[in-house]
Amino acid sequence: MSRFWSDVVHGLTPYVPGEQRSGLVKLNTNENPLGPSPRALAAIREAAADSLRLYPDPESTGLLRTLARYHDVAESQVFVGNGSDEVLAHAFAGLLRHDRPLLFPDVTYSFYPVYCRLFSVAYETIPLDDAMRVRADDYRRDCGAIIVANPNAPTGIALGLDDIAALLDSHPEQPVVIDEAYVDFGAETAIPLIARHPNLLVTRSMSKSRALAGLRVGYAIGHAGLIEGLSRVKNSFNSYPLGRLAQAGAIASVEDEDWFQHSRRTVMDNRARLCAGLERLGVALLPSHANFVLARHPRLDGASFAAALRARGILVRHFAAPRTAPYVRISIGSAADCDALLSSVPAS
Amino acid sequence: MSRFWSDVVHGLTPYVPGEQRSGLVKLNTNENPLGPSPRALAAIREAAADSLRLYPDPESTGLLRTLARYHDVAESQVFVGNGSDEVLAHAFAGLLRHDRPLLFPDVTYSFYPVYCRLFSVAYETIPLDDAMRVRADDYRRDCGAIIVANPNAPTGIALGLDDIAALLDSHPEQPVVIDEAYVDFGAETAIPLIARHPNLLVTRSMSKSRALAGLRVGYAIGHAGLIEGLSRVKNSFNSYPLGRLAQAGAIASVEDEDWFQHSRRTVMDNRARLCAGLERLGVALLPSHANFVLARHPRLDGASFAAALRARGILVRHFAAPRTAPYVRISIGSAADCDALLSSVPAS
Repeated sequence: MSRFWSDVVHGLTPYVPGEQRSGLVKLNTNENPLGPSPRALAAIREAAADSLRLYPDPESTGLLRTLARYHDVAESQVFVGNGSDEVLAHAFAGLLRHDRPLLFPDVTYSFYPVYCRLFSVAYETIPLDDAMRVRADDYRRDCGAIIVANPNAPTGIALGLDDIAALLDSHPEQPVVIDEAYVDFGAETAIPLIARHPNLLVTRSMSKSRALAGLRVGYAIGHAGLIEGLSRVKNSFNSYPLGRLAQAGAIASVEDEDWFQHSRRTVMDNRARLCAGLERLGVALLPSHANFVLARHPRLDGASFAAALRARGILVRHFAAPRTAPYVRISIGSAADCDALLSSVPAS
Repeated sequence: MSRFWSDVVHGLTPYVPGEQRSGLVKLNTNENPLGPSPRALAAIREAAADSLRLYPDPESTGLLRTLARYHDVAESQVFVGNGSDEVLAHAFAGLLRHDRPLLFPDVTYSFYPVYCRLFSVAYETIPLDDAMRVRADDYRRDCGAIIVANPNAPTGIALGLDDIAALLDSHPEQPVVIDEAYVDFGAETAIPLIARHPNLLVTRSMSKSRALAGLRVGYAIGHAGLIEGLSRVKNSFNSYPLGRLAQAGAIASVEDEDWFQHSRRTVMDNRARLCAGLERLGVALLPSHANFVLARHPRLDGASFAAALRARGILVRHFAAPRTAPYVRISIGSAADCDALLSSVPAS
């Protein structure tokens, strides 16, 4: 508390990220067990030169061009930021604040209500159904905008493109953000819907499927009008959100399609192996299309299950909110990480 | 224009950074002619490893510790961000928005009014005196907060510590931000005043004196209460503003004091040489304590002087606002850059 704070600061309850700790099997922050593309690492090392004395390209033109080509959209339809969290922050400030409330699921990325408080965005949460699924029909109501993570977090459950198209069709006058941080692990992307829906913004992260969590690059794809709104906010906040190393590494990562495919297939294979093992042990799972799985021990509540795993050297994440309290979220690690987890699950 | 924008977006007039172009002598964005510390580059190359798959430390603990030791303050008195522009953005949102207006000079860093529009901060500008100087006495009025760049930009003129202490003494209930992006080129830092003034926040950039413009690291030093306010905003915006490479490079840069001293002395020597040469050519200069100098050609207005230099392959910056229109801002480059500029000045 300080008398020097702006009023808004007193009402903030900041997002708390998962713990960063070494020496434990770290399955708590949805990191990728494989490293980044070796070509991305080489590009970064090459960019670590005297030219770091110069400002980066403020518009990240090369990266925009690379992403536009990769996703088969125009450069004017791409926006990049310092991690998808920054991209989302600009979307909350620039696209999601309206007189009527923003809608999002009651169980979802817990940063959404934090952004709402920072940017004074009115919001209402829509309950997931009893199977913890988003139901597009439940969003048919008066609102200012919608944001849905697909797959959702921390459930891992994916929505089909038909459902997303229905959401868009029923809200032609409202911006709809689909947060695809985890889409590369088996869900369908909504990017093809952008051509028909000028109100659709799709956000992406390079932290998970591209294993670049330590570099901080995220992006968004949408109609040029939405992208221009984000750019106006960005250029009123920080001209240079991506440094030279981030731009170079991100471009090289996108250009290495073989590594990307190898990486996401490995994670999906490890997920199948982990889920089969957990089910054999009596652990109930939600059907995941993400690089994590929400798991419920037959005997222990979520907090006790997480504590038992931690005592055995394994970090997973527990969210204390009412509907997620019974579960833990387990990130998909390497095959060895998965085996370590399976051998540490308390007997049912 | 898009009907999907939040209201605030329609009123934004984004900051326009200096042009990034190769093939010209680039004296338009206050970059450092020397490269970064070789130890910083080595640390970055070493950090470009498989561990980039992991999120960075969200609190940048190692960098906070290094900066606290360097400036002889507590870790709780240091805040880091993705360039000093992000640090300033969080300060505008979290410390400078009050019912009464924020004060800053009419001629200063042109991002300040841009932040004000983004965060709905009421502000009033205080005219520099006829010699383009900030006068502390002119700020003795009712206000919500104050921000002053020292040295000021684009004048390069520095305020003494007595003046800053007077500003602080006359506003004990208002946050006062001193933006020291350029302080390392010969001005006095206000950091020693923090011990006596809980309302003082000093912001710093690693882009200029540490030649790391391409890496994006800035920081702030102040009373722990002010730093907590900034942290609450940061943790409601982006948990991980600094990636692993930025943290590693910044730490190594701060630890290489010899390179830092060599770098700032070189810039100050080149400034003395450039200023002497310009004055011999009849160009009038404001007394600069920064890595740039505001210069007025005896015959040409600022726009024509900048255009004439550009036709000879040299980029400088011209600010079209009324009081800066007669001038161009020339960044202090290498000795060769300075000579190229001197030989390109149109005859008076």
